[in-house]
Amino acid sequence: MGAAPVWSVDPRTGKAREQVAVEATADEVDRAVRAAEAARPALADRTVRAALLRAAADLLDAAGEQVVEAADAETALGPTRLTGELARTTAQLRAFAEVVDDGAFLDIRIDHADADRTPPWPDLRRWKIPLGVVAVYSASNFPLAFSVPGGDTASALAAGCPVVIKAHPDHPATSELCAALLRKAAQQAGLPETVVALVHGFDAGVELVRHPLVAAAGFTGSVRGGRALFDAAAARPVPIPFHGELGSLNPVVITEAAADEGARTLGAGLAGSMTLGSGQFCTKPGLVLAPAGDAGDRLLTSLAAAVSESEPGVMLDHRMRDAFVAGVAERAALDGVEAPVTPGAGGEHTVNAGFLTVPARRLTAEGPHDLLLEECFGPVTVVARYETRDEIDAVLSRLPGNLTATLHAAADDPEAPGLLAALTPLAGRVLVGGWPTGVAVAPAQHHGGPYPATTSASTSVGATAIERWLRPVTYQSAPPALLPPELRDDNPLGLPRMVDGRPEPLAR
Amino acid sequence: MGAAPVWSVDPRTGKAREQVAVEATADEVDRAVRAAEAARPALADRTVRAALLRAAADLLDAAGEQVVEAADAETALGPTRLTGELARTTAQLRAFAEVVDDGAFLDIRIDHADADRTPPWPDLRRWKIPLGVVAVYSASNFPLAFSVPGGDTASALAAGCPVVIKAHPDHPATSELCAALLRKAAQQAGLPETVVALVHGFDAGVELVRHPLVAAAGFTGSVRGGRALFDAAAARPVPIPFHGELGSLNPVVITEAAADEGARTLGAGLAGSMTLGSGQFCTKPGLVLAPAGDAGDRLLTSLAAAVSESEPGVMLDHRMRDAFVAGVAERAALDGVEAPVTPGAGGEHTVNAGFLTVPARRLTAEGPHDLLLEECFGPVTVVARYETRDEIDAVLSRLPGNLTATLHAAADDPEAPGLLAALTPLAGRVLVGGWPTGVAVAPAQHHGGPYPATTSASTSVGATAIERWLRPVTYQSAPPALLPPELRDDNPLGLPRMVDGRPEPLAR
Repeated sequence: MGAAPVWSVDPRTGKAREQVAVEATADEVDRAVRAAEAARPALADRTVRAALLRAAADLLDAAGEQVVEAADAETALGPTRLTGELARTTAQLRAFAEVVDDGAFLDIRIDHADADRTPPWPDLRRWKIPLGVVAVYSASNFPLAFSVPGGDTASALAAGCPVVIKAHPDHPATSELCAALLRKAAQQAGLPETVVALVHGFDAGVELVRHPLVAAAGFTGSVRGGRALFDAAAARPVPIPFHGELGSLNPVVITEAAADEGARTLGAGLAGSMTLGSGQFCTKPGLVLAPAGDAGDRLLTSLAAAVSESEPGVMLDHRMRDAFVAGVAERAALDGVEAPVTPGAGGEHTVNAGFLTVPARRLTAEGPHDLLLEECFGPVTVVARYETRDEIDAVLSRLPGNLTATLHAAADDPEAPGLLAALTPLAGRVLVGGWPTGVAVAPAQHHGGPYPATTSASTSVGATAIERWLRPVTYQSAPPALLPPELRDDNPLGLPRMVDGRPEPLAR
Repeated sequence: MGAAPVWSVDPRTGKAREQVAVEATADEVDRAVRAAEAARPALADRTVRAALLRAAADLLDAAGEQVVEAADAETALGPTRLTGELARTTAQLRAFAEVVDDGAFLDIRIDHADADRTPPWPDLRRWKIPLGVVAVYSASNFPLAFSVPGGDTASALAAGCPVVIKAHPDHPATSELCAALLRKAAQQAGLPETVVALVHGFDAGVELVRHPLVAAAGFTGSVRGGRALFDAAAARPVPIPFHGELGSLNPVVITEAAADEGARTLGAGLAGSMTLGSGQFCTKPGLVLAPAGDAGDRLLTSLAAAVSESEPGVMLDHRMRDAFVAGVAERAALDGVEAPVTPGAGGEHTVNAGFLTVPARRLTAEGPHDLLLEECFGPVTVVARYETRDEIDAVLSRLPGNLTATLHAAADDPEAPGLLAALTPLAGRVLVGGWPTGVAVAPAQHHGGPYPATTSASTSVGATAIERWLRPVTYQSAPPALLPPELRDDNPLGLPRMVDGRPEPLAR
C-alpha cells in the first residue's frame, strides 16, 4: 500500500497526462484523520462554517475556467456540462451556508420541567451535534458535484464535521485542485487547513473507513465497491453509519394512454435522458416499461431516430468502456432481446448509444433475463414491452430499490393512481412526467432510495443531507450558565425551536 | 429450532410456573412476517393508527392488575415498580397517538416549481413513509415499557409499520398477555390482528432479523446479543437499519466542590439510583469519579450506609444472578480494588447490593482494570477516586459510548464547563445534578448514545423515536389529483409543513 504513483489519464486517448500524487500509506491516512480530528473544535462555530462554505463557493467560481478545464481533460464530460456542474456545486455550497445560518437542522426541542407529570419531568433540552470526522468517497461521474467539493463534503462541513476525502482515480488532478481551493477557503475563514484532507488510492480508502477516529462515511459509486466499504463500516469494533449511494435502475412506466398521446415526444425525451453525459448518470432511466402494440411501436421509432443521431461518446475511463461494451453484449445475447439501435463500442475510445427491447413477460420470473434488471452504466436502456397491467406489476414487484421511479400517464389516466402506488415503494423520488436525470438542489429534494440505491434512509442532495452527520444530545437539568446559547430560554440567536411540544414564536 | 416449550419461571424460587408457548419455527416466523406485511395497507390511515394506540393504552390500563401480577410473577420487579412502568407504558402509547395526530413527524417539505433557477426547479414534495414490517426485540428488564407494548412497538405502529415482536424469555406470559391486548386493540380500531405478532425463541429471533420482508429492527438488551443481531442485519443481501440499545456504563463525575458541599446527599442519592430495580436499569450509574480525600471519604461513608441498608434483591433470572455474582467477584479481585460494601450472592435466590472503589489512576491506561469500564448488570457501582483533574480527563477519554453521563458540580463551580464539554461526546443525555435512572417520556428526550449505547444515532424514548421507522419520498411534478392530501397546496389536514423553505402559516 502507498507510494504507487497516481496518474491523471485522458479518457479520449487512454494516455496518461501527468503524475498528480502518490497513493496514501496507512500512516498518511492516519495523520490526515488525526489532523482533521484535532481541527474539530474550530468548526464548532456556525458562523465560521457558513463563511467557509461561502468562501469555498467563491474560490471555485473564481477558478472556474481552470477547474472545468482540469475536469474535462480527465473525464471528457465536456465544458458545457462541467460548467453547469460547477455552478450547481457552488450553489450547493451556498445553500448549505444558508442551512447553517437558519439553524433548523439543529432540531432543537426544549421541554421545561413539569412537576405535574407522574413521575415529574425534569428540564430537557435537545439539539444535534456533529458526529466527528467524516470520510467522503468521491464519485467517478460527477467530478465536482459528488466529489471533493460536492454534497457530502458541503453537508459534512455544514454539520461541523471535518472531512477526509478519498479522491476518485478518474479525476485526481481535479480533486487536488478542488481540495487546494477548499483548504484556501478554510484559511480565509480562519480555520485550520486540516478540516479538509485528500487521499488517493484504493487501500487508503479501505484504511479510512476502518480508522477509529472516522465517525461516518459518505459514498457515491458502484454496488460492489460501496457494499465492500459498507461491510467494513459495519464490521468495525465500533460500527459507523455508512451513507452510500450504490446503484439504481430508475424504472419508467409509460401507460398505453400516455404512449398513444405522446409517442414521439416520449421517445425523444427518453433518448435525451438516457444518453445525457454518455449515460453515466446515477439517475439514468435504465428500464422502461412501454406498451406492446402500435403506440409503443411509434414511441420506439421516435426513440430509435433520436438515439441513432447521438454522437459517439467518451466514457469516464477505459475500464468503464470495457464494462459497458461487455455488459450490453451479454444483455443483447439473451433470448428474445433485440437491439433496434445497437449500443456498444464506437471508435477506439468511444461508445455508441443504443437500446434493447424485450417482452416484459421475460422479466416476470427469475431467470437469465434478470441481468436486464441490473444497472448497466453507460448510454443504454432496456425497453420492456408489456401486454397487460399484470405484467407491469409483476416486473415492478421484482425490482430492487431505486433512486427514482417515473410514471408517464395521460391526463385523468385511470391507470395512474395504481401505478403511482406501485412505484412509490421502489424509490426515493417518484416523478410524474419528465425524466429522472437532473436533481434539483432544493430543500424538498430526496436523492436516495431503498437498497441498493442507498445503504441508509438518507439523501445526498438537498437540505436534509446534513442530517447524516449529526446526532442528538439532550441536556437534563443543566443551569442556563452551562447551556449553549442555542438552548437557553431567551433564544439569543433566534433559532427555530420546538418548546414544550410547539413551535416557538420567533421575534426575528 | 422450534417446538421447544417456553416456560414462565419464578425468579424468586427458580421454579417453572407454567408452559406459556412453544418456540416459533422458521415457518411460523415466516407466516407471522407475511401476515404483518399483508396488513400494512390497513395501517396507512393515521386516524386508525392513533385509535389503535389509544385503544391499546385503554385495554392495558383496564387489565392493569392482571398485567402487573403476571409481570411480577416472572420478573420479581415488584408491584409498585410495575404499576409505575405500566402507567409509563400507556402514557407512551398515548403520547405516540398525539405524535400521529400532530403529523410533524411526516417532515413535509414542499418546494414549488421555480423557473428562475438555473437549471429550473421542478415541483418537489417530500414526506416520510413507513419502512415496512419492524422486528422488535423485547428487553429483560422492562417487561412492559421496553417490551411487547413498549416504545419500539408504539413508535413503529405510530409510523405505520406492523410489528413482529420477539418475546424475552424472562417474561413470556406477560408478553402473551400484552400481545393479546394489542391484538384486541387492533380489532377495536378495525385493523387486522396481524399488525402485531409475537414469537418466542432465540432461533426465531435470528430468523426474524434475516427475513426478507422485515424492513427494520429495534432491540434493547446486551452487547453480545445485540451485536450478533446487528451483524446479521448488516450482512443481509439487503441490509436493514438495526436500532439497538446494547449497554452503557453511565459515568458520573463529582467535583471536589460538589462532594464538599453535599457529600451525604450525594452518597444517599447514588445508593438509591444504583440499587433501583436491583441495579437492572440500562441507565444505572456504573462508574463514579469521586475525589480522593476527605469530601470523597464522607460521600463514601454516606453511600456505604445507604447501600448496607438496602434489602437483598431478586434478579430477573438466575443466569443474570450468576453473571452478577461472577462479575463482581472478578472485579473485586483486581489489584487495588476494595469493596466497602460487598456486592454478590445473598440468599439462594437473591443478591446483595454493594460497591467497589479503585484509585482512578488504575483506569488511565489499558490493563486488567479495563474490566471496571464494562457494564456489570446488577446492584453494583464502581467509585474511582481521582487525585487530579488530569486523571478525570484520562479516564473519560477511555470510555465507550453511553446512554447518559452525569455531572455533579457546585454552583459556579469553575470545573463545570470543562467537565460538561468532556462528558458531552460520551453520551446521548447529559445530566447536571440528579441521577440517570428514570427516563421521562418527553418530546425532547434522547435515550441513545454513541456505540455500544446504541447502534445508531436514534432514540428509543421520546417523540423522535418514530423517525427510526420512516424513510423520505419526494414526488416530482405530480398533479394535485395524484398527491396524497398531506402534500396538496390547500393542506386540508392542517399539517405543519415547510413550504418554499419556510414554515407554512397554519389556519388551524
